Amino acid sequence: MSSASDQANIPAPSTVISVDAMGGDRGPAAVVAGIARSAAKNPDIGFILHGPEDTLSRLVAKKRVLSGRCEIRNAETVVKMDDKPSHVMRRGKGSSMWSAIESVRNGDASVCVSCGNTGALMALSMVRLRKLPGVNRPAIACLWPSKNRGGFNVMLDVGADIRADADDLLQYALMGASYARNGLALSHPRIGLLNVGTEEHKGRAELKAAHDLIAANAKSNDYEFVGFVEGGDIPSAKVDVIVTDGFTGNVALKTAEGTASLISQLLRAAFNHTPLSRIAAMLAYTSMQRLKKRIDPRRVNGGVFLGLNGTVVKSHGSADATGISAAVKLAFQLGESGFSERLAARVASATAPRQDAGAEGPEVKDNL
Amino acid sequence: MSSASDQANIPAPSTVISVDAMGGDRGPAAVVAGIARSAAKNPDIGFILHGPEDTLSRLVAKKRVLSGRCEIRNAETVVKMDDKPSHVMRRGKGSSMWSAIESVRNGDASVCVSCGNTGALMALSMVRLRKLPGVNRPAIACLWPSKNRGGFNVMLDVGADIRADADDLLQYALMGASYARNGLALSHPRIGLLNVGTEEHKGRAELKAAHDLIAANAKSNDYEFVGFVEGGDIPSAKVDVIVTDGFTGNVALKTAEGTASLISQLLRAAFNHTPLSRIAAMLAYTSMQRLKKRIDPRRVNGGVFLGLNGTVVKSHGSADATGISAAVKLAFQLGESGFSERLAARVASATAPRQDAGAEGPEVKDNL
Repeated sequence: MSSASDQANIPAPSTVISVDAMGGDRGPAAVVAGIARSAAKNPDIGFILHGPEDTLSRLVAKKRVLSGRCEIRNAETVVKMDDKPSHVMRRGKGSSMWSAIESVRNGDASVCVSCGNTGALMALSMVRLRKLPGVNRPAIACLWPSKNRGGFNVMLDVGADIRADADDLLQYALMGASYARNGLALSHPRIGLLNVGTEEHKGRAELKAAHDLIAANAKSNDYEFVGFVEGGDIPSAKVDVIVTDGFTGNVALKTAEGTASLISQLLRAAFNHTPLSRIAAMLAYTSMQRLKKRIDPRRVNGGVFLGLNGTVVKSHGSADATGISAAVKLAFQLGESGFSERLAARVASATAPRQDAGAEGPEVKDNL
Repeated sequence: MSSASDQANIPAPSTVISVDAMGGDRGPAAVVAGIARSAAKNPDIGFILHGPEDTLSRLVAKKRVLSGRCEIRNAETVVKMDDKPSHVMRRGKGSSMWSAIESVRNGDASVCVSCGNTGALMALSMVRLRKLPGVNRPAIACLWPSKNRGGFNVMLDVGADIRADADDLLQYALMGASYARNGLALSHPRIGLLNVGTEEHKGRAELKAAHDLIAANAKSNDYEFVGFVEGGDIPSAKVDVIVTDGFTGNVALKTAEGTASLISQLLRAAFNHTPLSRIAAMLAYTSMQRLKKRIDPRRVNGGVFLGLNGTVVKSHGSADATGISAAVKLAFQLGESGFSERLAARVASATAPRQDAGAEGPEVKDNL
């Protein structure tokens, strides 16, 4: 820690993260507090911070740990939470979000972090970073608290696009596997396809087609396909990556958050119910804090945009310093592992043979 | 209680429930224990029990409270959990499930309860009871623990059909409103349509069309339409009935169950972590039991099949006596309130003007 705050001695940071300081519900102070926390923990991170220079300079100057490690790039406008993505695509130039993506585009930073408007962030990322060759629809992947040893599963798409055909779902499987390898250090991830039953005859037509495609690509792409999984399996230990369309994934994610919120409210009420239970609450305090930390959405803060030429981490709009710091940690891991390049190579190698297949693969070719 | 076990004095039960004794994971003993529990609590229920006569007679004879209130109808075969619905439709005659539905069909009982195979139960119910005039796709509605004062919201469809168009979603809204009136005693239920955002421009085309249809029918059908809701709103207090297609609804339901199971496992681990937390666990025991009861899936046990000429309550396959008794209680409430007839009248009155609309409503007419 002391070396981190001793600006003269620190080496050039190995991984630079581009951070949109604006657009979150708590404003730039929370963002600066979050990156300062990350900087104190990890001497290998550097930052490029985007937003109004005056405000940011003042905030950054207060954090000694950031001195010499945080470049500020002025951006006067801010993308608001209720701005429509189409509007931001036309008018977003000059915003802190645009500027943050630009630093990844031109190679100054390896990963971009923003807690702004998800739709606008995806739209700008698509326009400026462009889709990877072979990817039809980018996806948003999230980490999901689970019974697995590492504590998390990956689920995608949780909301980049409301539809996905069989080929898209295969791409999600490839991208999810790549993310699990680089983000969760699983060399041979287990992939499941979300459905309303585990029997092969169940579900929509595109799910049956995707089932066969994902199974056929398992061996050459170093993942195990466990077949169809159900909603109850998302937090289970029988799968590492859950693949679904963005409509279903988004509903599932928000349903789980709503369920956790309901249980947490009922738990508080239960602990408050009698004098005895209030004493119990005091005795159980540290255990409960540990549990809270384990499922705290701020700690799994960071949806990752997959399928672009560059990695973008979307943090919760309501993220505080803890949340921002968690998103920066994830961005650092992905940046350091060269995730973006590895993912591109995976997708390219998986789609290449099919591109050559000529008349046998017309549907796929349309998507490439 | 004493009058219930005193067979000579009890009046003829006001509401007869037809119960499939077979097909659940715990066998007929759990079912008989469950109906005995309901019989002890409520002197107004009578039963027709379906399954192998020998076995059932022995089980029923052991429960004094059932004597004189439980008719047994012999059915030798059992629909198994992995039987395909199409197979059961062709070969299911003579099964306890078929026989249980038959008692509703011929008017001997007002509601049917089964904890067997959901797909088969829906298929047989469709064939034997037939869809209500005006209903294209029947739906399964479930009770969902919520922050509302009554403790529950209604959600449908949670798995009768994997697809639903705009007209189907309108039907679900009408049926869900009717269920909320009769099952939850809400005179003017608030209905929400599940989507990935609350803005009107979001989501799939059929959702936008359904949004307008459900809004247009609100006034004449005594419900309030709150517009689009998200996954996090399902257990909230801002809505009473959540309308969605059976694919999304099923995934959401199972995701919530999986989330509750994960949290409950982590809660046990947290309480076991230190000697202090184990003492806390003892002190908090009754509070925790109360919480457990509140979100216990056995207590909200009973998906209701809506849109048929007769009401069928599907209990969890793994239901024990508590679960069966909860499903019987729900069946009794619905049977006593004349729910089936009221629902039929609602659907008929809502679809009638559109049937008369001639060329303006061809899509709807196709569905009638």
